[in-house]
Amino acid sequence: MLSEFDLIKHYFNRDRPARATLGIGDDCALLTPTPGMQMAISSDMLVEGRHFFAGAEPVQLGHKCLAVNLSDLAAMGARPVACTLALALPAAERDWLHGFSTGLFALADAHDCELIGGDTTKGPLNICITVFGELQPGHALRRDAAKVGDDIWISGTLGDARLALAGYLNEVPLDEASLRAAAVRMHAPTPRVELGMLLAQQRVAHAAIDISDGLVGDLGHILARSRVGATLDVDALPAGDVLATRDTALRRAYTAAGGDDYELCFTAPASARAAVLAAAGSVATPVTRVGRIEAEPGLRLVDAAGHALDLKLSSFDHFTS
Amino acid sequence: MLSEFDLIKHYFNRDRPARATLGIGDDCALLTPTPGMQMAISSDMLVEGRHFFAGAEPVQLGHKCLAVNLSDLAAMGARPVACTLALALPAAERDWLHGFSTGLFALADAHDCELIGGDTTKGPLNICITVFGELQPGHALRRDAAKVGDDIWISGTLGDARLALAGYLNEVPLDEASLRAAAVRMHAPTPRVELGMLLAQQRVAHAAIDISDGLVGDLGHILARSRVGATLDVDALPAGDVLATRDTALRRAYTAAGGDDYELCFTAPASARAAVLAAAGSVATPVTRVGRIEAEPGLRLVDAAGHALDLKLSSFDHFTS
Repeated sequence: MLSEFDLIKHYFNRDRPARATLGIGDDCALLTPTPGMQMAISSDMLVEGRHFFAGAEPVQLGHKCLAVNLSDLAAMGARPVACTLALALPAAERDWLHGFSTGLFALADAHDCELIGGDTTKGPLNICITVFGELQPGHALRRDAAKVGDDIWISGTLGDARLALAGYLNEVPLDEASLRAAAVRMHAPTPRVELGMLLAQQRVAHAAIDISDGLVGDLGHILARSRVGATLDVDALPAGDVLATRDTALRRAYTAAGGDDYELCFTAPASARAAVLAAAGSVATPVTRVGRIEAEPGLRLVDAAGHALDLKLSSFDHFTS
Repeated sequence: MLSEFDLIKHYFNRDRPARATLGIGDDCALLTPTPGMQMAISSDMLVEGRHFFAGAEPVQLGHKCLAVNLSDLAAMGARPVACTLALALPAAERDWLHGFSTGLFALADAHDCELIGGDTTKGPLNICITVFGELQPGHALRRDAAKVGDDIWISGTLGDARLALAGYLNEVPLDEASLRAAAVRMHAPTPRVELGMLLAQQRVAHAAIDISDGLVGDLGHILARSRVGATLDVDALPAGDVLATRDTALRRAYTAAGGDDYELCFTAPASARAAVLAAAGSVATPVTRVGRIEAEPGLRLVDAAGHALDLKLSSFDHFTS
């Protein structure tokens, strides 16, 4: 039987050049902040059967757990520095641990985000990661910073993760190839770290949020905190490759309120359109302009012709749904 | 039904002067590190049925979850600054949330440790806290810093938490008054934050660890990392008030390897004895000298007369036990 000590040693404690002053193995890790920089911090907890299916493939799961956290750093415009991992496992299974740590470290290494500590315990599968990033004071892409007249932008595409979930749950008929293609977006989301950092560093964007519970609900957080409203062109929303082949009603519903997208929704002044496109192009991340911040409170959904749409959408809530 | 948004707003988001540059409510919290200070970081995850009984009293639980994390900062000698809380709950029950947040904030306020963010989700009860502290570079009480000739010290008393667990499990007969008294140490441990900070600031101690899995095992981490050995006078170990009334065998077993104590075990040069006692006295924390760091590898347990003791002890391991 693998002990807690061996589990950490074999799967999570790596001998490599460290960013941390002190890493795994003491009561605390020690980080030496870069002088003059602020620290951005976020925690996300993923629960089996809630955020991922029981029996989820461990390499993808290791990727996804870190991806959703890096996505929060991206939405702030922070550069990833380090993370901690707290892991409750029903049992210490070598194959699972090997896969999970492989997926986690592949993404962590790609973003130079060092695992510096954490906790392991027996229990129902639960994965809690806390990420640490750095950014210059005043550069953070805060939810309360949207301005009237700002464009609303979306990175990448929306809705394929939700479509895959619908396929798994047999809510929507999907052939196997389509399900497999859409499921990549569900299992292996891409945190838009480089785009977020660039938008913050270049002072191009005002407000940003990452889309985890569905665009309409998440954009709503920007509107509420910034005390503004918006009009959103639902037909301009960039649908994922698989969703783009489906009918209009499904496309509208899943791009506007699908969830699990981990794309960025950000606002920027109309004068910055060229700068936004240049920044996005330089990190090879497509961006699409989908609406406008307005003084009138509330969110108005319109179609391509500008006519009001009355979609029955709701943001995902972890306790009422 | 309480929504996730309302849950956070009503029980965890407080309007008060903030240490954080940006607190609860955005993608990340923002901390502005004190110039020149290092950041100490630790995560602990507590699982129902593993770290606490199902149905545990929520005020005590809120206290304990933060206490075990603050204890890690104490063992490093760091000053608490902030924490994040990730919480998986079977349901959003108002009474439980009120109690839990009351216990958490009472301890957080006592140590000026601000809740700056986190996550809430539905799931089997699981509480993951990450704490952030600050300390001066070079002041950390690291596990690898014990020196041959150092005294070994223990704060407070040991074993009453383990005795209470034995009482609950009917491993040891305990009358109701004794169980109630011992259980305080199990449910409401006292993190030795002030003592740890002072030992670090005054450069009095070398190595430190907090005793969570039992002294023998936790001291073993100091010995392994410092590449030293030790002799421990088991009869010198300070027993908790209730345990002190029990027979020698039980007292030895539970002080040496009880677990859940959250006292500090630290080493300091013999020349610093007066300084250790003065530091401990100034924060009203009793400390007891219980052994000596030696060059010979391994841990030797002896009785009051200095004779070797062959106790069958094992440290708690979360996966093999």
